[in-house]
Amino acid sequence: MTDPKLDDLCVNTIRTLSIDAVQKANSGHPGMPMGAATLAYVLWDRFLKHNPADPAWPDRDRFILSAGHASMLLYSMLYLTGYEGITIDDIKSFRQWGSPTAGHPERGLIPGIEVTTGPLGQGFANSVGMAIAERFLAATFNRPGHAVIDHYTYVLASDGDLMEGISHEAASLAGHQRLSKLICLYDSNLVSLDGPTSLAFTEDLATRFEAYGWQVQRIDGMDAQQVESALRLAQQDAERPSIIVAHTHIGYGSPHKQDTSKAHGSPLGEEEVALAKRAYAWPEDKSFYVPDEALAHFRLARDRGAQRQRDWEARMDAYAKAYPADAAALRRALAGELPDGWDAALPSYAPGDKPLATRVASGAALNAIAGRLPLLIGGSADLGESNNTDLHDLGVMSAETPAGRNIYFGVREHGMVGALNGMSAHGGVVPFGATFLVFSDYCRPSIRLAALSGYSPVLVFTHDSVALGEDGPTHQPIEHLMALRAMPHLTLIRPADANETVMAWKAAVENRRGPTLLALSRQALPHLAGTVDGGARGLLRGAYVVSEAPGTGRPDAVIIATGSEVSLAVEAQAQLAGRDVRARVVSMPCWSFFEAQEQAYRDEVLPPDVRARVSVEAGVTLGWRRWVGDDGDAIGIDGRFGASAPGATVLRNLGFTPEEVARRTLALVEQFSGARR
Amino acid sequence: MTDPKLDDLCVNTIRTLSIDAVQKANSGHPGMPMGAATLAYVLWDRFLKHNPADPAWPDRDRFILSAGHASMLLYSMLYLTGYEGITIDDIKSFRQWGSPTAGHPERGLIPGIEVTTGPLGQGFANSVGMAIAERFLAATFNRPGHAVIDHYTYVLASDGDLMEGISHEAASLAGHQRLSKLICLYDSNLVSLDGPTSLAFTEDLATRFEAYGWQVQRIDGMDAQQVESALRLAQQDAERPSIIVAHTHIGYGSPHKQDTSKAHGSPLGEEEVALAKRAYAWPEDKSFYVPDEALAHFRLARDRGAQRQRDWEARMDAYAKAYPADAAALRRALAGELPDGWDAALPSYAPGDKPLATRVASGAALNAIAGRLPLLIGGSADLGESNNTDLHDLGVMSAETPAGRNIYFGVREHGMVGALNGMSAHGGVVPFGATFLVFSDYCRPSIRLAALSGYSPVLVFTHDSVALGEDGPTHQPIEHLMALRAMPHLTLIRPADANETVMAWKAAVENRRGPTLLALSRQALPHLAGTVDGGARGLLRGAYVVSEAPGTGRPDAVIIATGSEVSLAVEAQAQLAGRDVRARVVSMPCWSFFEAQEQAYRDEVLPPDVRARVSVEAGVTLGWRRWVGDDGDAIGIDGRFGASAPGATVLRNLGFTPEEVARRTLALVEQFSGARR
Repeated sequence: MTDPKLDDLCVNTIRTLSIDAVQKANSGHPGMPMGAATLAYVLWDRFLKHNPADPAWPDRDRFILSAGHASMLLYSMLYLTGYEGITIDDIKSFRQWGSPTAGHPERGLIPGIEVTTGPLGQGFANSVGMAIAERFLAATFNRPGHAVIDHYTYVLASDGDLMEGISHEAASLAGHQRLSKLICLYDSNLVSLDGPTSLAFTEDLATRFEAYGWQVQRIDGMDAQQVESALRLAQQDAERPSIIVAHTHIGYGSPHKQDTSKAHGSPLGEEEVALAKRAYAWPEDKSFYVPDEALAHFRLARDRGAQRQRDWEARMDAYAKAYPADAAALRRALAGELPDGWDAALPSYAPGDKPLATRVASGAALNAIAGRLPLLIGGSADLGESNNTDLHDLGVMSAETPAGRNIYFGVREHGMVGALNGMSAHGGVVPFGATFLVFSDYCRPSIRLAALSGYSPVLVFTHDSVALGEDGPTHQPIEHLMALRAMPHLTLIRPADANETVMAWKAAVENRRGPTLLALSRQALPHLAGTVDGGARGLLRGAYVVSEAPGTGRPDAVIIATGSEVSLAVEAQAQLAGRDVRARVVSMPCWSFFEAQEQAYRDEVLPPDVRARVSVEAGVTLGWRRWVGDDGDAIGIDGRFGASAPGATVLRNLGFTPEEVARRTLALVEQFSGARR
Repeated sequence: MTDPKLDDLCVNTIRTLSIDAVQKANSGHPGMPMGAATLAYVLWDRFLKHNPADPAWPDRDRFILSAGHASMLLYSMLYLTGYEGITIDDIKSFRQWGSPTAGHPERGLIPGIEVTTGPLGQGFANSVGMAIAERFLAATFNRPGHAVIDHYTYVLASDGDLMEGISHEAASLAGHQRLSKLICLYDSNLVSLDGPTSLAFTEDLATRFEAYGWQVQRIDGMDAQQVESALRLAQQDAERPSIIVAHTHIGYGSPHKQDTSKAHGSPLGEEEVALAKRAYAWPEDKSFYVPDEALAHFRLARDRGAQRQRDWEARMDAYAKAYPADAAALRRALAGELPDGWDAALPSYAPGDKPLATRVASGAALNAIAGRLPLLIGGSADLGESNNTDLHDLGVMSAETPAGRNIYFGVREHGMVGALNGMSAHGGVVPFGATFLVFSDYCRPSIRLAALSGYSPVLVFTHDSVALGEDGPTHQPIEHLMALRAMPHLTLIRPADANETVMAWKAAVENRRGPTLLALSRQALPHLAGTVDGGARGLLRGAYVVSEAPGTGRPDAVIIATGSEVSLAVEAQAQLAGRDVRARVVSMPCWSFFEAQEQAYRDEVLPPDVRARVSVEAGVTLGWRRWVGDDGDAIGIDGRFGASAPGATVLRNLGFTPEEVARRTLALVEQFSGARR
């Protein structure tokens, strides 16, 4: 039996904690916690399967606050239900330097924050990925009578989340996949920062979600009974994801700000805080006041959670007895460990082998890994054939075949990476996604969140330069490599040939601390002599001498290239040798790996006294000055976009020929020898 | 009366031209032109108001091929109806170097291509902007009996377009705005590159668009009569935008490839081309064959168009007699000319004035311009108050008040910029849009298309550094300035104070050849002595000496800063002066303007012999080596994201203090003086 008075007390505790924290910080969003407190309370009190003492328990339900600006709502729930990573003092230092209660929830700051949110729509897409991961793991590991993976994903979303395009992509995908254990509470308060949503947002959202194939309910979100009934119905739908359109009142209880945008993005002000507390029949003179009775009730979550986790552990034990190998594999996957020998079947290539596009080499590597890494799942945003991301004979993921490992994301780059992030944050799987490099722009906000939060999807981005040819400038990346290198904590690797591609995949799978982006060529590339017999291991140091200058002693010049331009540099090197210029070729597939090396190694690869340095990359030269120095030369594409023509023609006309690279290198060398004279 | 046999002949002419061009190029997408030829034919033959002899006629209907991969469909229509910018030889050189028939349609290559398309969803969003521009101009200029602006916007979209998130944002906005003269032909062929759309895309799209408030019809898109009736009904709806869900057959007529993804992204192959022609009862041995009868019929568009344009010119003459001032203003606007004195009311600031955030100065400048530039329209993606983009007393654009100049875009950054691009391409208006700088990621694909295509929206992107404070790392740009500078043809301006902000707005409005992005501070900044009395005009050269080193002769050091870091540099300069170090401060608000200066000016600002150079910018240092050189020092934020805390705290803790800038400058200067000793 529920006790309405106790419920009110608890809900008002959430509200007042949130109000007080925002007021003290003099910064934040009080309105949504005030309006959505009932939603959060009922969900956490009566449904959410979690154990505050072990926030990492793998079979917990996931709760995503997509509306990250309502961070105080989440912090209140975490504190009140007894998570150990957060204290009342943390709540009092909301939005202050070093406090885990950051302006928007950041994964990692408090165990219990499932994903970083704030940029709207991202948490919603993450939740789709989490539900995919849950269903995939359940389908892969559960056995009759042994439901060891069995949890819900709940997401609390706002108007803003569902205005964002990513919400469309993710919701359409979720409906298509019939992710019935995904439940969205939509806090429909009809107010956004600029005012009433009627200014800009009058779509019939419920019908829109019906069109996606979701179960849709409309309720009064201030009524605990309605919230409870709706959540129950949502759980019962075994065919469709669910959205509960919960009408709420932003700033509920604030006499002057309720239902207005004034309650949205600013503190209420001392006076209004007092008035709101009066409306809640709350002691007006107390701040951060948590009634004992409320706290005791909230903290029941700890016993409940511990019991449920014990039940699960018992189930796991039974499972381990019946299916020891599966149980071992599952525990390992949930711990984020890779199986022994996962990379044993990776191929290697010899110079005499048929030239391969790195995208093709990537497809081979991916399939060589897939057999030994059963939790590798992913696919492409409708460019699977071009991206070479098909996992052969491993099935298509669908409602009917949830253990299929190929995911067709549709033309939904943003939703794809948002979902990959959710899969990664869920744990247990190694997710990958693919599109053309130029369309990294379409999913850049999600890539950034992966980098910021430490999700580790592998992004297989092919067609990585103007050499893709006929599709023309709309499809040809120019600024993308550098724009991505600018992003902290993103590992960008642009391999030079098939052997480097194999090594890049190895690095990508082993990087479980952030996203790895593989930039791959459309066009075939020769196998370089310097990458065979393990030579490509140099990739792991970011840059290495892939082809030493002929003869001995200090080289006359260093040519630094990435990806498909490395073989070009090697050709130029040969031409230069014919003119008695001794050039070293450095392959630099990954700037961030190289930056992490000791100075001694960096100086070994790029000797400080060799000033004749040339970089070659089919993109903007911005940034290359760092490696070529004031006296060097950067060959790239500046001040223009690409062009539509066969790839070889585009390359030639934009100056990417061995002759041109040799000419510009020679010019530098002559300048220096002139200077020495 | 229509002649079904002639219709078939014309439709098959479109199909075979497209097939042959793709086959000859050995690259491209034949399937959609084959399936959607009837849609294009009926629209262009019986509805589209255009004059092939004057593609720039302002009151023409707009036709957007959002599915840019079907470029041959558009090229066929342009050639067949007699546009002068395209010949049969151009069609024969489809996708070749220098040919105007690029892989995807590029605005500017052939007059008649309204917008550049290819990246999916963009054309759809552009069409929403075009319809907004049309309705705004009509509401502003038309007078009873004088409908001088009165045209439709037609957009042909594919499955892929409508899977993209931007389509959701733009469609929801269009429904909200009730853009009744926007008509979308949706080529629903149920096949995308990866195979049948049933693999990923099973939403009920028709219902989804009903939820957005669109008129929805479902037809057989291969049936000319149905297409015609549906277009007529769509035109008649005066309350809602319309979408015609036209079921078609990709690769229609190809016996082995019709209705499969094999007809999508690759040539049919010689044999299949012949079989398809046989299916059309077409001479199999002829390539690029245009029957005289078909050509004559298509070319009727020229007479029809000339007549309609003459009618319009007569209307314009009558309008000019009745409303001479309005007519002059309209003609001017349509020609892209700014009114005389549009910038006369721009404010200026003195050092003693109250410090202002550049976002606040931007709001003042915007409003000072708005009164004299009646065709300036725009708004924010739900951050109007934060972005300071409200146009005071100039009304809200809505279906009821279509002449309102404030547009509430909702939380739809991508749709916003896509629509701004459409407004710009339409002509007649000067559009602007706003959000936080960090969310430039959300709209980056549209910013890129503006840069590539020459659309000139003004992007007012505020909260441009970690100094925004409490919202934390999800909201704090780190890599964005540099990632945007990497994009060709984008003008990025980061003004240092209010006077520079005024100048930035001047530059932005005058730049009608590409997008201008203003990066603006949240925090208040002092007015620099160097920007008063026209000093800020230095902004137009990209970088200038905003505070000269004390004394005379060569400065000991140059500190280069942008935006809010310039005043910090000036404080450091004063501290250095106290230690007898003579530092010059250069404000560098716009790299691309500076790059366009002559070397002599650049050397004047950054004397080559001053090697002690320090850059200060609250973002990644990648790229700064170019200006500070091998011997310089770049102060920025590397290898990390921001942090949630009050802005001043974040700045201090990340090293953005006058003391730190002075310390690092001094260290450099001492190093050089040491070296000289």
